[in-house]
This record gives sequence, structure tokens and C-alpha cells, in this order.
Amino acid sequence: MYRIGVDLGGTNIAVGIVNEKLELVKKVSTPTGATRPGEEIVSDIAALCNKVCEEMGISLSDIASIGIATPGIANDDDGVVEYANNLPFKNFPIAALLRKDLGDNVTVKIANDANAAAWGEACAGAAKGTKNSVMITLGTGVGGGVVIDNKLLTGFNYAGGELGHIVIEIDGAQCSCGRKGCWEAYSSATALIRMTNEKIEECKKTGRKSLMLDAQKVSGRTACDCMRAGDEAAKEVYDKYIKYLASGIATIINIFQPEVISLGGGVSGEGQSLIDALLPIVRAEQYGGGVVPLTELRIAKLGNDAGIIGAAML
Amino acid sequence: MYRIGVDLGGTNIAVGIVNEKLELVKKVSTPTGATRPGEEIVSDIAALCNKVCEEMGISLSDIASIGIATPGIANDDDGVVEYANNLPFKNFPIAALLRKDLGDNVTVKIANDANAAAWGEACAGAAKGTKNSVMITLGTGVGGGVVIDNKLLTGFNYAGGELGHIVIEIDGAQCSCGRKGCWEAYSSATALIRMTNEKIEECKKTGRKSLMLDAQKVSGRTACDCMRAGDEAAKEVYDKYIKYLASGIATIINIFQPEVISLGGGVSGEGQSLIDALLPIVRAEQYGGGVVPLTELRIAKLGNDAGIIGAAML
Repeated sequence: MYRIGVDLGGTNIAVGIVNEKLELVKKVSTPTGATRPGEEIVSDIAALCNKVCEEMGISLSDIASIGIATPGIANDDDGVVEYANNLPFKNFPIAALLRKDLGDNVTVKIANDANAAAWGEACAGAAKGTKNSVMITLGTGVGGGVVIDNKLLTGFNYAGGELGHIVIEIDGAQCSCGRKGCWEAYSSATALIRMTNEKIEECKKTGRKSLMLDAQKVSGRTACDCMRAGDEAAKEVYDKYIKYLASGIATIINIFQPEVISLGGGVSGEGQSLIDALLPIVRAEQYGGGVVPLTELRIAKLGNDAGIIGAAML
Repeated sequence: MYRIGVDLGGTNIAVGIVNEKLELVKKVSTPTGATRPGEEIVSDIAALCNKVCEEMGISLSDIASIGIATPGIANDDDGVVEYANNLPFKNFPIAALLRKDLGDNVTVKIANDANAAAWGEACAGAAKGTKNSVMITLGTGVGGGVVIDNKLLTGFNYAGGELGHIVIEIDGAQCSCGRKGCWEAYSSATALIRMTNEKIEECKKTGRKSLMLDAQKVSGRTACDCMRAGDEAAKEVYDKYIKYLASGIATIINIFQPEVISLGGGVSGEGQSLIDALLPIVRAEQYGGGVVPLTELRIAKLGNDAGIIGAAML
């Protein structure tokens, strides 16, 4: 028996088949066309479901369930996306519409995309084998998903688990959500780029030398790369970024005490060196050290497929 | 059938009987003597259990279960207090020792005291009837307990739910836990007293008049009382306190989206005016406004009995 996972993003729709070993064995995709009516997007999802089955040489009747990872607030009880920031969904019955296209005997589950990715890592990735884990995605924003006793934390209204929007600095940097000082405004790749640019400006003003000044285009890797080449100003940027990221992680541990926290998204490409930089600060700041088993920090394993695999396993 | 709840504090041990309507119908207590060996404390708990049954005119065989609310990290699977800050417990098998005193056929459950209080409010208090709630205790510290799907959040190592120790201001005020900038360091009664004293010093230095200067002894109520009497400097203290408290509450909502957050502890004695001051800021900062049902803020109902009732219902 197979399952289908749908990763519905603002840019692309990716649909994949997951086998009983929880491996992604076939994947197809198409641009989302995020400004179209929602019904058209659902029609494309249905078409991709049929296509991926066809390419696999199976039929929809071989599929145990279809899961959709969607941006926004996903009410899985009703199969309704209550709201999505970057898609035309408001109180949008995505599950019912997909069943209308594919047949009423199809089971459709939905989840917020960050939650689905966390579920994927819990089922088949960095937190496999645990019952309590958190995934944090360090990309354009800071996404979070929390698994407690093998169940996704969604809150009573399905809007929970917004770990990027915990304030870590009152009156701090402006966040895209409207609050000031959110973790996302300090620990996303976007924030790392902002901190890098701020340091570059500072270097320009003060005449301080830095390899960062030679960067053609500043990215989330600029500070890391220059630091590794021995640049002091770049190390200051990276240390500051790590300090904020570690503080947020210690806070997440104090709240959830998960067995594993996995880090995904672009910044996690730094790999073990990122973990090594974070751990001393996290251990010093977290509750329970020296008394109870400690949360492990790991790099996420499933990359961009976490959402599809997590959605399939909903 | 009755249940017994034990609220084990650093100062007193309170033991009560809870009936089937979840009412506390009888209560006895004794000083803890927190520096004694743990075994002696357990013997006193056992004696209080017998005494409260005697006063009620029932026997231990009429008791369905005994629950203990204890400071520190309570491993309910093993009945062991892993560690407590203010009691001589380290890897302390409190449940087994109590069964040794009272008989092996007695069921003993344990929980952290803040968690037990949250469970009490969820079962019989301000969050009765909900499946997802958070209780925040604003006292000497900031305690927290989280109920998700009718189950207490403890984390994989039983040390979770430490909501007072989320950092809301990087490099901020020193917290008793060792971190800087914890919510507890801004939103406890202790913090409110510190902010009041700071403002009083400021008034003294600048010659600014304030009713707070007349306070015989500064307490958590000084700023509130003076503000209500029209004092501007006191209002600044209270507004600052509310701002930090509201920020933390909005963060808790963004993480958990509980149906109810109940506020307990000394500061919650302010009652509805506290809620009225918090709500505009919380609503402006929280995620999901205008789209999904919103978390209700309520004053906790059970007062000092929340721990006993919650422990009894474990």
C-alpha cells in the first residue's frame, strides 16, 4: 500500500508517492500559480495525483490516503484551510474539493506545511523513533512543528505551533507578522542576511577590512564562508546569529523538553558545525541539565521532501 | 469514591480529599520542614492522608488514588522526583515510599506543582470543559502548566512546561534560573516589586512626586493601588509590567493556541482589570486574529486549592 503526499507551496506544487518503508519513490510537480482561484489549484493537485500514480504504474485504489501540506491554518477535522497568507484560501474546503475531483472513497488529510515537515522528520527523518520532537526550519522565515506523544501540536483552532513568532527581544527587530522582536526576525536566513548587511555597512563606514565586502551578493552563507576564511567581522555576525538562535532553542527546550530538535531549512546546510556552535550555549541556558536526559540537536534529514513525506503520513 | 490530593510545598504540606464533583471537601496541613530527610517528609504525608480520612469518617480503602503535587521534576512513570530545588529530593522514589507507608494497594501519581495546578484548573476551575488550556501562575516566580488534548505536557524527561523560563529579552534582567531575560524576571510578582522599587528610586532622584513614595512596604500591589489613586509614576510601572506580561501571553498563544489561558498567583488578585489591561496588547500581537476562534484569558478559579485538586485528579 502506498500513500500520497502533497507539498503545496507558494511557488510549486509537489506530489509524491511514499511506500511502506516511508521512502519517497516518485515525485511530480507543477508551478502553483498562486494568484489563481483555489479550485484551479486543487484541480492541478488532482491531476498530479493521477499523474504520479500513472508514472508509478499503480492506480488511486492502491493509495491508502492523500495528505496535503499547505501554508496557513489547516483545520484537519473539517479539511478546511482557514486562511493562508500567500494563497487565495479563506475558509477553503480543500479536502472536500480534492475528493470531488478524485472520488469520495479517497481519504484526504491536511496539515500546515511546517507541521507536516516536522511530522515527516518524526516519522522518517532525524527524529525517527521518538514520540516527542520539534522541527525548526531556518529559511526565509522560522517555521516550527511540534510532535507530542506522536501527535502534531495544532492548538484548539489549528493555528498553533508558530514557533517563529515567539518574542525573544521586546521592542526588537520588526517581524513580518507585525510583532517586534520575534525569533524569526533574528534566526531566519533573512535575518542572517540582514545582520551581514548591517556589518558590511559598519565596516564600510569605519574603514574596517572584511572579506564580506568582496561578496558579489550577500546570502545566508556569506558570513559563514568568510568566517571560515578567517574573517573577524564575519565571525561577529555569525556569533550574534548563533546567540539568538541558541536562546530560542533553549526556550523551546524549556517549554517542550523534546527528545530531539531537528534543524532544517537553508541555514541547516551548515551541518554539524552549526550544532557544535549552538550546543554550548543551549546547554548552559536550558533547564534540567545534569539531572535528566537532554534534548538532542540534530540536522534534519529529509530536506525538501519532509513536507511530502510528512503529508503522506498524516 | 474519593481522591486525595497532596500539595507539597517548601513551607507547608497540604492534603485534601476531593469528591466526585471535584470539590475539595476536607483539608489538613503541616509545616514541611524542608531541610529534613525526604523519608520524614513522606511519613508526614502518609500521616496527613490517614488524618484527613479519619476527619472525613472514611478509610483509605474509600480512596481511588492519591496524587502528589511536588516542586521540581516529577517522573510520573516511575513515581520519582528527579530533582527539586527547595526540597532534599534527588532521584527520590516518593510514590514507592508513600505506598510503603500506606500499603501497596494504594495508587500514587505525581506531578510538578505548577503542572498539577494547571490540571486542577482544567478539571474543575477556569478551564473546565476544555481539552487545551494553559495556566500561568504569577507569584514569586512565573509558573506554567500546559494541557494538550486532556493531557499534561511534561516532555520526554518530565522537565517540560517551564513557561517562566522563556527568554523575552535577550541579555535582559537576571533570572533566578541562571538565564538572563526570562519571562519570570519581568512578569512575576517579584519582578513587579523590582520595577516598583526602581521607579521609586527614580522618583527620589529626580524629585518627582509619587504616592508610591509613601508606601510603608513595597508589594506587588503598591503600583496597582497607587495607579488607581491617580498616580502617574505608578501607572508607568503597571503599564510596563502589563506590556511584558502581555508579550509573553501572546507568545504562549502563538505556540499553543489553547482554548483558555488562566492566570493565577498573587498578581491575578487584580482580577478582571488585569485581563482588561492585557487583552488589547495580546490581541494585537497574537497570531490568527480575525480568522480563527481566539484563546480566552481568564482569572484562575481554584486559588491555593488548584494544586490539591489537580493532584487528586492526576
